[in-house]
Amino acid sequence: MNKLSVGVVGCGYWGPNLIRNFYENDNIEVRYVCDTDPGKLGKIDRRYPTVKTTVNYQDLLADPTLDAVVIATPVRAHFPLAQQALAANKHVVVEKPMCMSSAECEALVALAEERKLVLMVDHTFAYHGAVRRIKEVIDRGELGDILYFDSVRINLGLFQSDVNVVWDLAVHDLSIMDHLLGVTPKSVHATGACHAGNGIEDIAYCAFSFDNNLIANLNVSWLSPVKVRQMLIGGTKKMVVYDDLTPMEKIRIYDKGISVSQPQNDENRYEKLVQYRIGDMYSPVYDQSEALKTEVAHFVDCVRNGKRPITDGRSGLRIVRMLEAIEASLKTGQPQQICLDGAGVETAKKTVSTAGNKR
Amino acid sequence: MNKLSVGVVGCGYWGPNLIRNFYENDNIEVRYVCDTDPGKLGKIDRRYPTVKTTVNYQDLLADPTLDAVVIATPVRAHFPLAQQALAANKHVVVEKPMCMSSAECEALVALAEERKLVLMVDHTFAYHGAVRRIKEVIDRGELGDILYFDSVRINLGLFQSDVNVVWDLAVHDLSIMDHLLGVTPKSVHATGACHAGNGIEDIAYCAFSFDNNLIANLNVSWLSPVKVRQMLIGGTKKMVVYDDLTPMEKIRIYDKGISVSQPQNDENRYEKLVQYRIGDMYSPVYDQSEALKTEVAHFVDCVRNGKRPITDGRSGLRIVRMLEAIEASLKTGQPQQICLDGAGVETAKKTVSTAGNKR
Amino acid sequence: MNKLSVGVVGCGYWGPNLIRNFYENDNIEVRYVCDTDPGKLGKIDRRYPTVKTTVNYQDLLADPTLDAVVIATPVRAHFPLAQQALAANKHVVVEKPMCMSSAECEALVALAEERKLVLMVDHTFAYHGAVRRIKEVIDRGELGDILYFDSVRINLGLFQSDVNVVWDLAVHDLSIMDHLLGVTPKSVHATGACHAGNGIEDIAYCAFSFDNNLIANLNVSWLSPVKVRQMLIGGTKKMVVYDDLTPMEKIRIYDKGISVSQPQNDENRYEKLVQYRIGDMYSPVYDQSEALKTEVAHFVDCVRNGKRPITDGRSGLRIVRMLEAIEASLKTGQPQQICLDGAGVETAKKTVSTAGNKR
Amino acid sequence: MNKLSVGVVGCGYWGPNLIRNFYENDNIEVRYVCDTDPGKLGKIDRRYPTVKTTVNYQDLLADPTLDAVVIATPVRAHFPLAQQALAANKHVVVEKPMCMSSAECEALVALAEERKLVLMVDHTFAYHGAVRRIKEVIDRGELGDILYFDSVRINLGLFQSDVNVVWDLAVHDLSIMDHLLGVTPKSVHATGACHAGNGIEDIAYCAFSFDNNLIANLNVSWLSPVKVRQMLIGGTKKMVVYDDLTPMEKIRIYDKGISVSQPQNDENRYEKLVQYRIGDMYSPVYDQSEALKTEVAHFVDCVRNGKRPITDGRSGLRIVRMLEAIEASLKTGQPQQICLDGAGVETAKKTVSTAGNKR
Repeated sequence: MNKLSVGVVGCGYWGPNLIRNFYENDNIEVRYVCDTDPGKLGKIDRRYPTVKTTVNYQDLLADPTLDAVVIATPVRAHFPLAQQALAANKHVVVEKPMCMSSAECEALVALAEERKLVLMVDHTFAYHGAVRRIKEVIDRGELGDILYFDSVRINLGLFQSDVNVVWDLAVHDLSIMDHLLGVTPKSVHATGACHAGNGIEDIAYCAFSFDNNLIANLNVSWLSPVKVRQMLIGGTKKMVVYDDLTPMEKIRIYDKGISVSQPQNDENRYEKLVQYRIGDMYSPVYDQSEALKTEVAHFVDCVRNGKRPITDGRSGLRIVRMLEAIEASLKTGQPQQICLDGAGVETAKKTVSTAGNKR
Repeated sequence: MNKLSVGVVGCGYWGPNLIRNFYENDNIEVRYVCDTDPGKLGKIDRRYPTVKTTVNYQDLLADPTLDAVVIATPVRAHFPLAQQALAANKHVVVEKPMCMSSAECEALVALAEERKLVLMVDHTFAYHGAVRRIKEVIDRGELGDILYFDSVRINLGLFQSDVNVVWDLAVHDLSIMDHLLGVTPKSVHATGACHAGNGIEDIAYCAFSFDNNLIANLNVSWLSPVKVRQMLIGGTKKMVVYDDLTPMEKIRIYDKGISVSQPQNDENRYEKLVQYRIGDMYSPVYDQSEALKTEVAHFVDCVRNGKRPITDGRSGLRIVRMLEAIEASLKTGQPQQICLDGAGVETAKKTVSTAGNKR
Repeated sequence: MNKLSVGVVGCGYWGPNLIRNFYENDNIEVRYVCDTDPGKLGKIDRRYPTVKTTVNYQDLLADPTLDAVVIATPVRAHFPLAQQALAANKHVVVEKPMCMSSAECEALVALAEERKLVLMVDHTFAYHGAVRRIKEVIDRGELGDILYFDSVRINLGLFQSDVNVVWDLAVHDLSIMDHLLGVTPKSVHATGACHAGNGIEDIAYCAFSFDNNLIANLNVSWLSPVKVRQMLIGGTKKMVVYDDLTPMEKIRIYDKGISVSQPQNDENRYEKLVQYRIGDMYSPVYDQSEALKTEVAHFVDCVRNGKRPITDGRSGLRIVRMLEAIEASLKTGQPQQICLDGAGVETAKKTVSTAGNKR
Repeated sequence: MNKLSVGVVGCGYWGPNLIRNFYENDNIEVRYVCDTDPGKLGKIDRRYPTVKTTVNYQDLLADPTLDAVVIATPVRAHFPLAQQALAANKHVVVEKPMCMSSAECEALVALAEERKLVLMVDHTFAYHGAVRRIKEVIDRGELGDILYFDSVRINLGLFQSDVNVVWDLAVHDLSIMDHLLGVTPKSVHATGACHAGNGIEDIAYCAFSFDNNLIANLNVSWLSPVKVRQMLIGGTKKMVVYDDLTPMEKIRIYDKGISVSQPQNDENRYEKLVQYRIGDMYSPVYDQSEALKTEVAHFVDCVRNGKRPITDGRSGLRIVRMLEAIEASLKTGQPQQICLDGAGVETAKKTVSTAGNKR
């Protein structure tokens, strides 16, 4: 089978990891690496002598046999670059967050769906062995009904100059939450603070409400002396703790739950209303492969077999909508509704379709 | 010096701890223990043969040489019992939360202040060696300006039939926060969920705003498979982690902080805007005495020397006001203002004064 | 059924725990508490008004209806007191270590067996829920063949003036090892050091050899800045970690093991000779009852039903023999054989029998 | 200044790390990489196009301007390759353990000293930031007199076919101990077990005696379900815990110690003979650089300025002597004396000198 030919745009912080993983996949030929900084391209030349480097993105679009473009630039360039690539009939992988706005995401989703191209967002955690293992546990109903999702992602720095801690860190939790729960919250209330005097939040708490009794909360911070990466997911039957920093037993599944019984006489305020059950805990093994490697293989599978990626454009859109709602809540101090899928993309499709007709 | 004579009301969950600690203080005579349940009094008789037990609270009030009453009943009885005791010129220690409402708290504060009686609320954590040690660190300015206060207090159960998880668990965090920070938040937004079908929240997230850049957040839950008791307090100079469950080094003080520098060119999104500093961590020793023992000694000191307790009625009032605001936010989904000290107590004083004149 | 009547001798550090647990057992009447210090007896009088206190041990022996004596005195008094009690036809519980020497232990075992009295040594850990749970796991073959037993019991102090760290701390590990493995090591090599200038070892390492490939090692110390209570037990099929200090998940059972494969060419020194297998870990729940409570109930069962205690005199003897061998190795620097059960007790029985005939 | 020209022999497990670190040092030119496996050389060609690769070690020796040779082959080749390199007037870095026997080490030390060449053994841990930080703490006397050194290095696998767990793992602890304590133990008693049926120990306990009260113990295992890398170093004034696996606070320094007081009356066995002191703990920051990078820079400094490396041939010899003594103790079950520095090297020097004269 022919190799999938790929061009990567952007050699900043994350780009080299993408390049390496695409390069090491036997079904892929990394044909181009593009960056506006020739210095960065020089390093690529030395490391990957067979790859063509260029400062001109049009070189990629103009190559009629190039199958896909991988976009790892600053966020604000995601939309124009991805739009051009899709317009040139290239499959697209775009770094997260997908775009600066949900409108941009909708336009890309519409364009990709109209052209039947694969549009994948690099929400890497969805491909992490531990997250996939938890997903299996949830999907087979082992937790029962999900009651809550709680995630803490805090550490000291890396402070950024263009995005706040929500766009930088919470984007990971949102993608994991979106992937694991499979439902979109209806609203969010977020609280945050900016301590660096630049109007960019460095701490945020985001509380999500869903249609049922489910509750979710994210705590992200660049200002914690200790690094924490911990998720709690509680169900009626079992509960999961996922601690990404512990060297062993990152996933622990507790056979713990509650069942409601009749209240006792109210004289005795410490009588239990709710019975809780405590059983064994187990910590399952999971695939230790690099998440990005799994993700790249999934991309190949999607392109070759016309599959929809786990982290497709619509998931990227959902996450940007949640980010926008958090942002709005941070600014207004009020809870914000989160737009559900649908209308936006359909409207965008009409625009795409019209544009296509005009062309 | 004469011993302080004390009567304790209520032998439920916490009462026996109070009785034991008052009993073991050399400056105190526990003269009465009162409970409506004769069975509980029987245990007291066997354990403390010298103490008079009674089902009649009036026995305590009618004893003109009894100095103080300690109230450890269900919350709704706090107000009437404390009011009667103060009216009978007894000093009062009341279990936390102080009362069912801030109006009740205001009335008690007014009465105690008018009669120059000690009114102390049993917010035990304020007397814990670790909390006192952190208080010293903050008061001497070691942390610099406080940037955030974050507390997590989660475990499985103990579910209660009359109060939600906020009144049960967050009351501890509120008293620690009130004691350590010394400022009252201006508003709170709380999110919670009830999973036991009884309208009683078992999970809650409470985000507080203050006048300056300070932010505080409490996370309490009866529905976590793992028990966590952890606080993070970040300042401009240093940051504290207080983990109450670790057997050693409960307090860790990090010489970590941030300083703002000029933003780099925006081409490079991972350039740091903010410099952070990482130095040594130290874990101080602290007084390992039982907190309640320290608290009882403090009560004796306040009564004898006319001092105001660290956890006086006004602090109890502040905490009930915060609990009420959280409760209101949970019900409405909207941020709630938190009433500041002052007016309520003064109004209550006029009522007390008028009532006094009438008598 | 009649209650078992018991007299307790010794109200030092551990005695009060024994008194409380015997007292709280519904099938037991604590009839006497004996100590040479009247001050300690005064506390007992106040706490347990129904118990007779005495400074005269003969009061217990002279009571023909007293069923059992519990000995919690300093070690050197264990032998004479237990011997007298057995001679007076009382069942005996004796604090650990059982005696000062194996000869003394043998004499007690012989006497108890001749008179068909229960002789139990208070090796409390054998009744701890976690240890019993591990015992079940081992007994059902879940670990496969045991390959090693490794125990670390270190902390700062409590330094003692009469026994070294081996008699103070390793005695716990020896009883757990004896109970869990069910085989006695054939020899031991111990290394230690005395840093307090009193000839009493405060650190010791004890390496045991068994008949097969099994290996065991104990590390005890009064001189560690951190407290550790950790055991590793490895088998061919699974491996156990028992951490007594962790608040949750004290027992973790790893589905890990090794299987031998053919060596690769020796050119490549990092080729694996041995395959290892890594599966899930689980942490079982276990009975959280106080170990001493379980032990006391077991004693009642043994007396009433003529059963042999889990921690009978012969187990106490085995542990003292191991302590003696460790002591000898510490003094000589040479490995020491450990005497196996049998001859000593039989010889002692002849003496007992002769003495009995003479009487 | 001219770059130091270096040839690296051996591209197995560790070789590539050495190559990368020598390559990245600005004062070094990696001129050759040599391996008997052309496949491995192919990878080097692609990764480092400027480096000459060869299967012929003589190419390195025959280059008169090559300054140094780095030997990362299987252990048994260390001696002949290093000897030839020194004989060809090359400075030498040799992987650890230095040689198969102390006699070989002595010969290399003698040769290097006679020819005034740098002979460095790659005991990487001596250059680790945390170890260097602990060394500073010890050297400035902060711990007082060292009382004990205890190291645990256990995990599951990597089982090896040619060396036992002592030569594989304990070699690290020995080099750290040698570096930190600066004194050589006089004897060792080791216990071990072989569970894989190949006569190669997979668990070992090594207890060292020193001239004073100092005691050291190493516990190494390939058969532990959990990975542990922990050292305790206790002094009269302070104590250090070094946990290499914890993500933060690898070094903790406890202000804990003991002081001897008079024994109390022996009636009370729990009276303390020894007072212990508990103060603050602190966790210092340390240089986070890659240890190998620091080591390579140190090698350059030694060659250029005629310095003796921290991990010179004599330290490599001491460690091999300790390994030999452990090995002998494992085989005999008896304690083994450890040869002190001196005679062996001097004898070897005479041989070198004679050989030199003959030539």
